[in-house]
Amino acid sequence: MALFQCEFSSEVLSRSVSMNVILPQPSYKEGPVRGKLYPTLFLLHGFSDNHTAYLRSTSIERYAADLGIAIVMPGLDNSYYTDMAHGGKYWTFLTEELPAAARSFFPLSEKREDNFVAGHSMGGFGALKWGLNFPERFAAIASMSGVTDMVYHLANVRKEPGDKKRSLELVFGDADVSETENDVIYKLERLHNSSSVKPMLYQACGTEDFLYEHNLRFHRICKETNLDYTYDFGPGDHTWDYWDKKIQAVLKWLPIQ
Amino acid sequence: MALFQCEFSSEVLSRSVSMNVILPQPSYKEGPVRGKLYPTLFLLHGFSDNHTAYLRSTSIERYAADLGIAIVMPGLDNSYYTDMAHGGKYWTFLTEELPAAARSFFPLSEKREDNFVAGHSMGGFGALKWGLNFPERFAAIASMSGVTDMVYHLANVRKEPGDKKRSLELVFGDADVSETENDVIYKLERLHNSSSVKPMLYQACGTEDFLYEHNLRFHRICKETNLDYTYDFGPGDHTWDYWDKKIQAVLKWLPIQ
Amino acid sequence: MALFQCEFSSEVLSRSVSMNVILPQPSYKEGPVRGKLYPTLFLLHGFSDNHTAYLRSTSIERYAADLGIAIVMPGLDNSYYTDMAHGGKYWTFLTEELPAAARSFFPLSEKREDNFVAGHSMGGFGALKWGLNFPERFAAIASMSGVTDMVYHLANVRKEPGDKKRSLELVFGDADVSETENDVIYKLERLHNSSSVKPMLYQACGTEDFLYEHNLRFHRICKETNLDYTYDFGPGDHTWDYWDKKIQAVLKWLPIQ
Amino acid sequence: MALFQCEFSSEVLSRSVSMNVILPQPSYKEGPVRGKLYPTLFLLHGFSDNHTAYLRSTSIERYAADLGIAIVMPGLDNSYYTDMAHGGKYWTFLTEELPAAARSFFPLSEKREDNFVAGHSMGGFGALKWGLNFPERFAAIASMSGVTDMVYHLANVRKEPGDKKRSLELVFGDADVSETENDVIYKLERLHNSSSVKPMLYQACGTEDFLYEHNLRFHRICKETNLDYTYDFGPGDHTWDYWDKKIQAVLKWLPIQ
Repeated sequence: MALFQCEFSSEVLSRSVSMNVILPQPSYKEGPVRGKLYPTLFLLHGFSDNHTAYLRSTSIERYAADLGIAIVMPGLDNSYYTDMAHGGKYWTFLTEELPAAARSFFPLSEKREDNFVAGHSMGGFGALKWGLNFPERFAAIASMSGVTDMVYHLANVRKEPGDKKRSLELVFGDADVSETENDVIYKLERLHNSSSVKPMLYQACGTEDFLYEHNLRFHRICKETNLDYTYDFGPGDHTWDYWDKKIQAVLKWLPIQ
Repeated sequence: MALFQCEFSSEVLSRSVSMNVILPQPSYKEGPVRGKLYPTLFLLHGFSDNHTAYLRSTSIERYAADLGIAIVMPGLDNSYYTDMAHGGKYWTFLTEELPAAARSFFPLSEKREDNFVAGHSMGGFGALKWGLNFPERFAAIASMSGVTDMVYHLANVRKEPGDKKRSLELVFGDADVSETENDVIYKLERLHNSSSVKPMLYQACGTEDFLYEHNLRFHRICKETNLDYTYDFGPGDHTWDYWDKKIQAVLKWLPIQ
Repeated sequence: MALFQCEFSSEVLSRSVSMNVILPQPSYKEGPVRGKLYPTLFLLHGFSDNHTAYLRSTSIERYAADLGIAIVMPGLDNSYYTDMAHGGKYWTFLTEELPAAARSFFPLSEKREDNFVAGHSMGGFGALKWGLNFPERFAAIASMSGVTDMVYHLANVRKEPGDKKRSLELVFGDADVSETENDVIYKLERLHNSSSVKPMLYQACGTEDFLYEHNLRFHRICKETNLDYTYDFGPGDHTWDYWDKKIQAVLKWLPIQ
Repeated sequence: MALFQCEFSSEVLSRSVSMNVILPQPSYKEGPVRGKLYPTLFLLHGFSDNHTAYLRSTSIERYAADLGIAIVMPGLDNSYYTDMAHGGKYWTFLTEELPAAARSFFPLSEKREDNFVAGHSMGGFGALKWGLNFPERFAAIASMSGVTDMVYHLANVRKEPGDKKRSLELVFGDADVSETENDVIYKLERLHNSSSVKPMLYQACGTEDFLYEHNLRFHRICKETNLDYTYDFGPGDHTWDYWDKKIQAVLKWLPIQ
């Protein structure tokens, strides 16, 4: 495969954005491959990470070597993939400018069946948020150790002063996110009840993870929906050792055509 | 010279930070150079730029090739090098964690006479702010097209709703910055009246720059101080074409020992 | 524009290849730009340089900002863009695998009128060699301080033992390159006499350059041909200061449609 | 930890060299750490790889996170870490210029007890070669799936025309490497019989590896020496899946003080 360390300019964020991208590399002996557009996994990092997280903490390129997919790994700061109450419009960037930019640079398929989103921790929230708000854009959504219930999360975090509270205040202010785009359980239930096309859903969380209870809450709802739902709860903590294993499981699970 | 694209973790910002660094490269034939610590220029980017700005928009490495200095170019977002009202503690990062990290990675002198700070636009403000708040740490300060009067700037920007106003609200909230660390004219006057050691000061601004009037305000004060002050006002606008020329002038002006 | 630091695998060279690429970045507000293929400049580095040369020693991205072209800057070692007598098949890589790979990754036009090749020193030779051996692939060829007469160059270098001689022995062995693909004057004369489509040709060399006499030899032939030929001989030496200026002239001269 | 993507200039190779380096990152809250020099692992890539190999195909930075060591990963082409018969002086670069350059850029200990060398495949050969030729410089040497008997290897490869033969001809010409610096078994035996300080030795090879027989030959000698020798032969092939596991074992085995 080929690795691209990208720097481009975001109009939405008024700043340079760093992004890592992995692409399949066709054998040149087989002749030109003009017109081929690759299935694409958008892979979202966690809090305190950046675009280099999966490159440095997993062997993502090697794991994807035989899959024929592109992987797009943008760096989106500690934004929770949200148009921040006090900060940039990362949600607008993620859902509008990023895919447009990535598809203008690289040969990436825009078809729903070729698009997937995954992430861990804050990025698990981002994946669920993007996928469940725009189910018509994705064939599959995967959350690893994700923040899967932002309503519950905010209620807990807001109780205790500290860095975590301050970080989330920048993102959400003091808004009630219930039944908004950030309420992924609400979005999941709406999707269940709609006639929309439904992405496949994957959820992994380690039983030692501080977000395990959190993930169980989401899990109980998922089980009751009509989505094609896969879950994986087993030994593991909120660590890269766990995500390194689970991203391999996610890649195997993706419905790549 | 040698170029280093660095990724490291900031405790202050709770995130990964990207930084470019340029170092002199001794000839290995002349034997080991253990213990040599390089004079260092901290070079600060402007609004909407990141750590790659000087690498991509100037030939900084070539310009510095014969000077025997290190150049440290951190990416600090649209922070105005400030502990943001709504955002990260970039001022703390800049003045404490960044130099400590850079000096733990690379052989950089900590001596006042070996340390310089420069920048353009928002980074010009950052350079003046850092240098004038901590004159005992720097031998020279250079501002190119800098925001040289934040009190005046905020008064103007706050009048008109828009992106600029919103960006500055994240940084300063609705605070009055007069006679604070962000009031570099105040800091300059204090320095003039103090018995502190005084860095050399360089100011450049193009006569077509929207910050020209702004720079004249700072200039009038500088002329009255007892600092070793150099200025360069001539044709030029708020563009990289201008900064590419002026950074060469700054490098020549630096009192490298 | 957007910058891409690429790592990909070469079958021809049996190794990883590093490459820098610059692409235009469309405004996402103007909607998707699927299907747009960019005019492309292949820009070849000199002896002892690599893929980072133009990024570090010029402001290439800024100079090209308004031109709407892609710039592909591969790292090809000290190969003289040649299938080496003792080393890798860099000519095969350059002329076959590289364009195929670059066009499989990025939206680059394959049309003759959209393809240009340029370089300096060893890369000037590479540009002339590629363009004059395959005139049907390029609309324009530019040499800055190029090795423009390899027959003459080898005759000189082979006289004196030393690093230069050894480097060229790896490339050419003891072959006579007269009237081969490496004899760009021969190729130029053949092109003049053929009915082939003819690229525009640009030649720059500083009058202080050790290759100046060399370039005059090529120049005398060029003047006699029916190619659209532009030359620029003036003060200058074999330095990046010179190439930084001339690459700007080359970019202005390119017949971008 | 911190990651550094480095570009520097080699006098020995007359070219730019790319190198990745990982450094521990001290907590800045604990105050400055001037004077601390890190134990260092030089980690050598295999044939067809470059300096990005371990970054992309393992999680090396994560594996080393708690060890307090620096890891230096240079890109040395398909040189077999040798002053090539037809090519650059990579052995001189590796053993002289590289450590000098790395130690001039970064705070790396020069002490024998703080220096280790490891690699896989061609890099396993490089590690054994460097460590056994200079036992006074290293506390530990590790080979993963290494080419551990170059005399035997050349005898086999020279029998059959093909790319492999051609690659090794560039490196060794038609020289007999017996009892030279490239004959690591000879060097091992000499070390055994000398009064020199002796590095610890680690050897891993998968039983499915085409170099397994090869590694057994080396193993039989090692067992008879007085070196502190650890080996690990088990299921595995000549793949990154195997090296990703074994580099973790190597890191655990290193006698870091």
